[in-house]
Amino acid sequence: MRIVISVGDAAGIGPEIARKAVAAPAFAGVEFTVLGLPEAPVAPGKPDPANGRRAVEAVRAATLGCLERRFDALVTGPINKAVVESAGIRFSGHTGYIAELCGNPPVRMVLAGPRMKVIHVSTHIALAEACRRATRDRVLETIRIGHAMLGRLGEAAAPIAVAGLNPHSGEGGLFGGEEQREITPAIEAARAEGIPAEGPVPPDTAFYRALRGDFGMVVAMYHDQGHIPSKLIGFEETVNVTAGLPIIRTSVDHGTAYDIAGTGKASAANMEAAIRMALRLAGAPVQ
Amino acid sequence: MRIVISVGDAAGIGPEIARKAVAAPAFAGVEFTVLGLPEAPVAPGKPDPANGRRAVEAVRAATLGCLERRFDALVTGPINKAVVESAGIRFSGHTGYIAELCGNPPVRMVLAGPRMKVIHVSTHIALAEACRRATRDRVLETIRIGHAMLGRLGEAAAPIAVAGLNPHSGEGGLFGGEEQREITPAIEAARAEGIPAEGPVPPDTAFYRALRGDFGMVVAMYHDQGHIPSKLIGFEETVNVTAGLPIIRTSVDHGTAYDIAGTGKASAANMEAAIRMALRLAGAPVQ
Repeated sequence: MRIVISVGDAAGIGPEIARKAVAAPAFAGVEFTVLGLPEAPVAPGKPDPANGRRAVEAVRAATLGCLERRFDALVTGPINKAVVESAGIRFSGHTGYIAELCGNPPVRMVLAGPRMKVIHVSTHIALAEACRRATRDRVLETIRIGHAMLGRLGEAAAPIAVAGLNPHSGEGGLFGGEEQREITPAIEAARAEGIPAEGPVPPDTAFYRALRGDFGMVVAMYHDQGHIPSKLIGFEETVNVTAGLPIIRTSVDHGTAYDIAGTGKASAANMEAAIRMALRLAGAPVQ
Repeated sequence: MRIVISVGDAAGIGPEIARKAVAAPAFAGVEFTVLGLPEAPVAPGKPDPANGRRAVEAVRAATLGCLERRFDALVTGPINKAVVESAGIRFSGHTGYIAELCGNPPVRMVLAGPRMKVIHVSTHIALAEACRRATRDRVLETIRIGHAMLGRLGEAAAPIAVAGLNPHSGEGGLFGGEEQREITPAIEAARAEGIPAEGPVPPDTAFYRALRGDFGMVVAMYHDQGHIPSKLIGFEETVNVTAGLPIIRTSVDHGTAYDIAGTGKASAANMEAAIRMALRLAGAPVQ
């Protein structure tokens, strides 16, 4: 397996955790390419436009390398968006940038931990707007993308819980009609395609049921519906996967941690988890 | 201490868990009054309008008894709303009914577990409506009610985290303006009153920070923001408290469990936790 890592902002902990992770005994035999390391030492914890530019260039080269099949998967380290923009680069974020290089297919954010995987119908938009975005078509597309990801992991038969949008999934239309109007029709369409989707599952039971093993994945209707439980149960082991791309891309689920950059104290556990997930998605026999 | 328990629907597990809980050695010395037990045996697990009527009458008598200071606190067992309504009683729910008997003060739902307490700005309304309900005045009132409850528990100095409404609390207005327009002004007003309120705290970090001990309570902007993390971390020990009433009222946080009623298998753990919380709120020296 050929994994390319973009280290992210060189003034953050990215280079350190990449270096530690690739040396992990569990990854013996994996062929790593690490992009975005600075040629000369940089000041740790200091925002520098040059680091922003270098980080984006590394992501670009890594993504193109995956598209050209020179690498099997991309693992990205943490970028600071404001630092990238300080270099005069318009940057909507890591995921948007990679999707653009891939021709803008519909993508979804997955938080994947050892005990729970959550895919999001929407992410960085106002909650009121997220309510409007929970349409039949978007929910159906999210279920499909999630199911395809499970397939890559050999879990195509795993039931997918589709959470409701409203409390108690609207209690039969008493508070909110999105379940009846949008979400249930999406589930029915998915099931007609052979996808084992279930729901709408009341949001406050979907996640603990997933945790106890009832579901292979939960479809969350908005950012915090999925992020609150994911961060609560597995902060260090939960990684970010961009599902729906023509390439495999996983990412650490933490920031640049400027405050501890350069001290040698950064834990590579999340980077290692991101690499493990990339390997699994690429078909390697890892845990 | 004089605790009154309304057992809830007699065809559910309420009578059984009340009987088990009042016999718990930990409650030796507590004076219990149990209301709503049927005079003749009822068919377990069978919806019966007579049980609905008896359950509501018990709640009414218990609430009035607390208002008249004949009891120090009320603990309610599970009711089935549909069964109550089948008796021809208009019933908006347990909490609304009790609040009405108390003259309709502003009340808020608290989920209280051993490791986290969450108070909700709104509960059983559509999520889109909950976004509109997150106003400065409602948020401020929620903070005040939560702070008063912490005061009853001897934790008036505990910091209160006020969660944002939008992902990342709106990221400075990029997605959603409720934080700047409504939530931050509410926090500032609360602080001006001497309440140690903090935030807006990004929703996906507020709860794990509360869990590690940073906050005595979290103000959740909507039902599932608080219910998802509460149910994930402490299903059996988390109880429901109606804060803002002139009386103390706690409740089990589960339903009638018709499927196991009459089998003797029901766990009284949640009922015992509700009693413990009622005793603490009433000023008794319990854990």
